[in-house]
Amino acid sequence: MFRDEEVIVWQDCRLNLIDQRFLPFEEKYFQCNSVQNVHDAIRDMVVRGAPAIGITAAYGTAISAISHKDTSTWREAIATDIDFLAESRPTAVNLFWALRRMRSCLDDLQQGNVVEGLLAEAKAIHQEEVVSNHAMAILAEKLIEPGSGVLTHCNTGSLATGAGGTALGVIKYAYKKAKIAKVFADETRPWLQGSRLTAWELVQAGIPVQLIADGAAAHLMKTGQVQWLIVGSDRILANGDAANKIGTYHAAIAARYHGVKVMFVAPTSTVDMSMKSGDEVVIEERAPQELLSFRGQQIAPEWAGAWNPVFDVTPHAIIDAIVTEKAVVLNPDLEKIKAMIDDR
Amino acid sequence: MFRDEEVIVWQDCRLNLIDQRFLPFEEKYFQCNSVQNVHDAIRDMVVRGAPAIGITAAYGTAISAISHKDTSTWREAIATDIDFLAESRPTAVNLFWALRRMRSCLDDLQQGNVVEGLLAEAKAIHQEEVVSNHAMAILAEKLIEPGSGVLTHCNTGSLATGAGGTALGVIKYAYKKAKIAKVFADETRPWLQGSRLTAWELVQAGIPVQLIADGAAAHLMKTGQVQWLIVGSDRILANGDAANKIGTYHAAIAARYHGVKVMFVAPTSTVDMSMKSGDEVVIEERAPQELLSFRGQQIAPEWAGAWNPVFDVTPHAIIDAIVTEKAVVLNPDLEKIKAMIDDR
Repeated sequence: MFRDEEVIVWQDCRLNLIDQRFLPFEEKYFQCNSVQNVHDAIRDMVVRGAPAIGITAAYGTAISAISHKDTSTWREAIATDIDFLAESRPTAVNLFWALRRMRSCLDDLQQGNVVEGLLAEAKAIHQEEVVSNHAMAILAEKLIEPGSGVLTHCNTGSLATGAGGTALGVIKYAYKKAKIAKVFADETRPWLQGSRLTAWELVQAGIPVQLIADGAAAHLMKTGQVQWLIVGSDRILANGDAANKIGTYHAAIAARYHGVKVMFVAPTSTVDMSMKSGDEVVIEERAPQELLSFRGQQIAPEWAGAWNPVFDVTPHAIIDAIVTEKAVVLNPDLEKIKAMIDDR
Repeated sequence: MFRDEEVIVWQDCRLNLIDQRFLPFEEKYFQCNSVQNVHDAIRDMVVRGAPAIGITAAYGTAISAISHKDTSTWREAIATDIDFLAESRPTAVNLFWALRRMRSCLDDLQQGNVVEGLLAEAKAIHQEEVVSNHAMAILAEKLIEPGSGVLTHCNTGSLATGAGGTALGVIKYAYKKAKIAKVFADETRPWLQGSRLTAWELVQAGIPVQLIADGAAAHLMKTGQVQWLIVGSDRILANGDAANKIGTYHAAIAARYHGVKVMFVAPTSTVDMSMKSGDEVVIEERAPQELLSFRGQQIAPEWAGAWNPVFDVTPHAIIDAIVTEKAVVLNPDLEKIKAMIDDR
């Protein structure tokens, strides 16, 4: 039984990260006692999921403080390390957000309290994620009828947030409250986050899970076994459109067709009011090789092509609820999202 | 460059089958010179796809005749071999159909002409598939606007029919006629027929193909790159509902949502008038292990569950066209399917 608080662990001036590259087969830790270690852990996907990356980088700043606290150039050295940590994953929004916050904290500290100060700020970021994830779960659980079946996509649990999780946090909480009776998880090609990580997390939580091929979602919905599709989001736009892992939009269309409700769960920090709608989102396309091979084994002819977009956008018109740590937004639109954010 | 007629080859009293277990990495043949070989080839998936299995079994009957033609009990021995071949894949409808036809042919033959007689019948079954596949391609091609993009699912090409193919036959023909400009193929989890077989066939035919994750289909359609979803069918019901490989229904819903047209291509022998609609079809569920592992490598925790239905049914309401070797049926319903079949 693995607990949420065992994903990212600060202990004896070191940061221990459950190494997600070896899950679900080995539960071993990657130990960081230098800024270089932390940088490598983020770059090499020891830790993934935007909130978890942000928390990890924040603790990395505390490790930097431990290394430099007795030098005359401690402030510059820590600032340089913060810049180095920011280079570990160039597109992770939460990484930059967490490091800006650590930098701002550093500016207020003196040599005598820099370690405690930065460590306290890192722990605060971590703890805020715990509180935020829990708040989402409590709000979302109320929407679900007792005995419901759910389908989820990708991994949005403690492995992704270093806390209770967003969509998967809702599922775990609602399962304990007997609101959810049955959990299905898309395997989530091409990276198989569902098979490798979500299934592992649910098994650890003592919750039975049935993996399905991503293409089986519509048939599953037709059988009446699920009432909700509950997923996370990487970016929610001003009008309530939501970007998430490729396949989410596909599943949401099938859900709407079958009268299965669609819920996106994400912190308000995910909301990007600078973009009016999902049409403005540039969808990242990754290397074809992710589809053409599996764990180093070639699947398809090497001379075949592949198109590998890794996100898609679900339009707000087919979203039944967006749940953040602040509020439930039913049938989201610009006005409702704006009201929630202004209340932040 | 591999040609359609090289999938199942009769030569010098032997049957040579391209061994689909080794595709796309090795193009080697499995040689059958005994009924046991043919039985094993079907059972062990050297050959797959309902029409291809039927043709293979028919040639197996000719091999039986060669073995027994000089014995006093030749008729009984061949009949016994036919029964043995029927046990190779218990659920393949075309297998039984082809063997019934060979059995009926055997009844009309004498010892002196049994080899030529059975071989001629096997070749006739094979040739009829070629003619039928070609007829579908000519009919379907007329529906497609020049320069269209298409998405297909699973493998429905020469590897599946031993001839030009059904849906993939249409795509190859329409590509040559410049009706199709761009081909996308779902990788088709869990067996990856798209990655392993369809990509190989298209590359062999000199047609560029882009593989996509099954979950990327909706996003692909949103980008406007495809105008048609063209797929095969394992069983078409009386009202025009169509069963096919898992994921087809999911893709068809997304197609309808985006105004992408949906075409099913299959021979009239696929139409089952004994079932009123897809609701009567029992969906085969296969071993969870197919989802939990990949080529012997475990993907998910062994203690995770998986639900692995291998077919789904697309309701006729979201099908734009069913194309058989006889006719194009637009917006299929019971009346139109019945009219086509009565005309058979």
